[in-house]
Amino acid sequence: MSEKDELFETMINSEEIFHGRLLHIFRDTVRLPNGNEVTRELFKHWGAVCIVPVTEECNVIMERQFRYPLGRVITEIPAGKLDSLEEDRLDAAKRELWEETGITADNWVSLGDFCPAAAYSSERITMYLATGLHRGERHLDQDEFLNIKEMPLDEVVQEIMDGKISDGKTIAAILKADHYLKSQN
Amino acid sequence: MSEKDELFETMINSEEIFHGRLLHIFRDTVRLPNGNEVTRELFKHWGAVCIVPVTEECNVIMERQFRYPLGRVITEIPAGKLDSLEEDRLDAAKRELWEETGITADNWVSLGDFCPAAAYSSERITMYLATGLHRGERHLDQDEFLNIKEMPLDEVVQEIMDGKISDGKTIAAILKADHYLKSQN
Repeated sequence: MSEKDELFETMINSEEIFHGRLLHIFRDTVRLPNGNEVTRELFKHWGAVCIVPVTEECNVIMERQFRYPLGRVITEIPAGKLDSLEEDRLDAAKRELWEETGITADNWVSLGDFCPAAAYSSERITMYLATGLHRGERHLDQDEFLNIKEMPLDEVVQEIMDGKISDGKTIAAILKADHYLKSQN
Repeated sequence: MSEKDELFETMINSEEIFHGRLLHIFRDTVRLPNGNEVTRELFKHWGAVCIVPVTEECNVIMERQFRYPLGRVITEIPAGKLDSLEEDRLDAAKRELWEETGITADNWVSLGDFCPAAAYSSERITMYLATGLHRGERHLDQDEFLNIKEMPLDEVVQEIMDGKISDGKTIAAILKADHYLKSQN
């Protein structure tokens, strides 16, 4: 039997059960590989981007931001949602980096995609490494609050290994960027 | 001004707007550091665990599983939700590894926490490295379908670097485990 026959689920019915400002929740009825019907609750997301901005001195431009669902301020990399389903992901990354940090970058490398919660979310975050940085003014929304924290890349990796940084996209993108930069030297 | 004064948000009101089988969605009204009131949509989760099981030959026991929100079969590490808010996380990791792969392990090391979506979810996944593996029978639910795939750790890391593996917890836990194992040698 092929992997598709063994594992695939087929949608029978899809119902939007909550349409919020950010969260769009669906309850779908699906047929399992054994023929049984079950419901899947899931959340559809436009997608997002995150950026590892690295200076010539091998420092990373990190952010300190209050994350309400966690109830605390966390250390993370710059990131943001796409403005629309159609927005080019690299354009979104350039916009978010500029808005949140005032930085523009000469060099952009894709670090691939990060799916935060494959069990219940369609969200896909594209990760980028940005180098050749130029500093400028930030352009935060009136109701957006975050502090910038420049840290040596090695120190960020150490904080990840020590469990001090627990933001998912930040762990994944920093460790991929570190691996990539070491492979280039 | 302290970081707390600059960044913290205070809950004014919390309303449960959807109570599903898996997803519990809340819309909270919060006060921002500038005094403005905004709403935050978020999703409260019991928490979960994931496991990087590594054999003596330095192979990882991976899974192939259809993930409905992504519409495809992905490669990921064993993982699962806590049975209750009170369940011990290490106990949950041992249970999930045994159920999904039939494996028990002599040695367990915490790789820290992974927050998949700090912007809208309270979920915290604790990551473990398991070694000293003993193989046995799987104990899947009737409606649970997944295949086991044993892969050399170096190959998993390469698939992550090539962008072939995009599951968030898998990227984070594998790269942390790889970093940890190299630091032990």
